[in-house]
Amino acid sequence: MTDILRSDDLAEKIKTKIKDKINNNNLSPKLATIRLGNNPGDVAYERGILKSANSLNISVDTNILSRDILEDDLLNLIDDLNNDTSVDGIIIFRPLPEHLDEEKINLSLSPKKDLDCLNPINKSKVYSGDITGFIPLSPKAGIMLLEEYGIDLEGKDCVIVNDSSVVGKPLSMILLENEATVTICHSRTRDLKEKTKNADIVFTAIGRAEYFDRSYFTKDSIIIDIGVSRNKDGKMRGDLDTLSIDDFVGAYSPVPGGIGKLTNLLLLESLLMYSC
Amino acid sequence: MTDILRSDDLAEKIKTKIKDKINNNNLSPKLATIRLGNNPGDVAYERGILKSANSLNISVDTNILSRDILEDDLLNLIDDLNNDTSVDGIIIFRPLPEHLDEEKINLSLSPKKDLDCLNPINKSKVYSGDITGFIPLSPKAGIMLLEEYGIDLEGKDCVIVNDSSVVGKPLSMILLENEATVTICHSRTRDLKEKTKNADIVFTAIGRAEYFDRSYFTKDSIIIDIGVSRNKDGKMRGDLDTLSIDDFVGAYSPVPGGIGKLTNLLLLESLLMYSC
Repeated sequence: MTDILRSDDLAEKIKTKIKDKINNNNLSPKLATIRLGNNPGDVAYERGILKSANSLNISVDTNILSRDILEDDLLNLIDDLNNDTSVDGIIIFRPLPEHLDEEKINLSLSPKKDLDCLNPINKSKVYSGDITGFIPLSPKAGIMLLEEYGIDLEGKDCVIVNDSSVVGKPLSMILLENEATVTICHSRTRDLKEKTKNADIVFTAIGRAEYFDRSYFTKDSIIIDIGVSRNKDGKMRGDLDTLSIDDFVGAYSPVPGGIGKLTNLLLLESLLMYSC
Repeated sequence: MTDILRSDDLAEKIKTKIKDKINNNNLSPKLATIRLGNNPGDVAYERGILKSANSLNISVDTNILSRDILEDDLLNLIDDLNNDTSVDGIIIFRPLPEHLDEEKINLSLSPKKDLDCLNPINKSKVYSGDITGFIPLSPKAGIMLLEEYGIDLEGKDCVIVNDSSVVGKPLSMILLENEATVTICHSRTRDLKEKTKNADIVFTAIGRAEYFDRSYFTKDSIIIDIGVSRNKDGKMRGDLDTLSIDDFVGAYSPVPGGIGKLTNLLLLESLLMYSC
């Protein structure tokens, strides 16, 4: 019997928590988004944020600029938003156009409004084991989903199939804080199947729809699927071949209905970080 | 036949490189050290640095202050050293006394003089995979020693027994940059022997003299010993029980004669980072 780690209940809990915080403290949180150009992924992400924010009475100041904006103009906008006391958090859709100095932009974001944890001050906190501030959202969602289902991490063997700065690396740091043993795998990893099979918990984020079938797992495997991509029928899917693993592995988080559902809510929740 | 990965030759190469850089570019590098109080470990470390610096004609400005120094006074000293164009790098012996705000001190260090990689700007660079600037020195020494002996990291299974912010975590990031698969272990790790035995390369840094005997390894194991502590006879030793592993494992770095010999030199080499 395979447990499906759905996030609906947790999502509702987070929504309630956000609403209660807003009401109890009489807050009027405001998120500022910065989109450069009309990349369809960015537009869809912005739409998703607006929908979630709307349902929670959170206002969003959407800043839409030309993709060939001058660096100084973007820095001025960020500076204005940093200084605007009505704005609680800022996100800038990525990747940035190449003519912009990413390091400079990240540094310019006020650490107190840097929801995506890109300013070095926030980033280095995560890597020093301080996960009380802004932390990358999909790793956070994965850990929360495990907690929700009462799956303890202490001493567990965790394998992450992703070594990026937004998923694999920060996730590894957060897992270490939770006293798990962590293995970080990637495209050069040998015998990946052996590693995923030996793990108690596997986090996948390779962005290849339905890639991992049951040959990568055992009947005890718990899998958090952070990948999102389109399969050959054009449908949004995770990294897991659910037809193959269903009724075989111990538990897994579905796509959709797992991690993705949580990240926008966690983004909005983190808006309230310094408000109360 | 076990290979002993001594660092003497590499140390000589680094010395020559430092001397050549200084001579070819007509540099007069200066290191500033800050010691708070008379902790014997700090005094010994300072003496070691002075000795290495002296042999390379590098001047050292040793600042020795009271352990109960006011935070503002320390910040003022750091500010002076940041602005002193004759000073190329600054190190502050750790741990700091508890009344000082470590985060504030780290932030106050100019990123261009922060040899220990403590300023968040430098720290977050390492975690973003940029290892071209200041990086923590014992991880750097371990990687260089492997390179010196022609041991390639790509696709190798590496196990680190240490999850600290100065060794295990940055080492894991540097190994990922070298395309190794990385497992980070610590005191809560289950079946540590199984993990070290399955690895191609093991990095130990637990600081328990002669702890790891041959039961943790195989005849192919390559081990980098970053630990330094005193054994029951009061002698400085690494984490490896060399009597047990000699003529059994594939290769290991000795203590003394391995990593420790390199770190002071790498500290001095990093002084020249922004000079030429």
